[in-house]
Amino acid sequence: MIVSHMEQYSQQLNDVFHALADPTRRAVLRQLGKSPASISDLAEPFDMALPSFMKHIRLLEDSGLIRTRKEGRVRTCVIEKKQFAVAEAWLTAQRTLWEARTDRLEQFVTATQPKGKLK
Amino acid sequence: MIVSHMEQYSQQLNDVFHALADPTRRAVLRQLGKSPASISDLAEPFDMALPSFMKHIRLLEDSGLIRTRKEGRVRTCVIEKKQFAVAEAWLTAQRTLWEARTDRLEQFVTATQPKGKLK
Repeated sequence: MIVSHMEQYSQQLNDVFHALADPTRRAVLRQLGKSPASISDLAEPFDMALPSFMKHIRLLEDSGLIRTRKEGRVRTCVIEKKQFAVAEAWLTAQRTLWEARTDRLEQFVTATQPKGKLK
Repeated sequence: MIVSHMEQYSQQLNDVFHALADPTRRAVLRQLGKSPASISDLAEPFDMALPSFMKHIRLLEDSGLIRTRKEGRVRTCVIEKKQFAVAEAWLTAQRTLWEARTDRLEQFVTATQPKGKLK
């Protein structure tokens, strides 16, 4: 199956925003923003069985927001800043649309303003 | 039930990011970024039954990313910029964490650099 760039990008946005839509996953990302950490350290603050926690880690890894690597018996997680930029860029693009609209409105108001002061 | 501000904020982030995790809903938001529109105009480009489309609209409305209002027989949708800021602010806060870390690392490197040039 041939998947276009647009479809790949759309799927990336689906995965990233879905990954961000959960408080446990956001807490993990916040923690990894401070420093890389092992899965057991990351799991520690949560009252959650390890298999459930691992599902969150795998979903984060599949979304591209984190990488994990195994060193001996410890799996370390690292944040992947590039993938955050995908979500940020989409939000910024929306803002650009609104601001273009606001600018056009201002130009219209300025262009149609009467020259003299109202008395 | 008493819900804390933190829990309310967390629920808002869940709802906003979940709303953004779907290509139909993102396309609707992009369209509404250009101008307000009726539900039938918004539905037009999609090969989707109206009840399915309405679920997306309701989810967007529940997330706070759009408002809708009925004027006569037409329901018009308007984007709610404030709620985008909730998602943007969260992403910006993460970036601030990394950048603080990078700054600390740079200070460390600068502080521990030898005074003279290496020969």
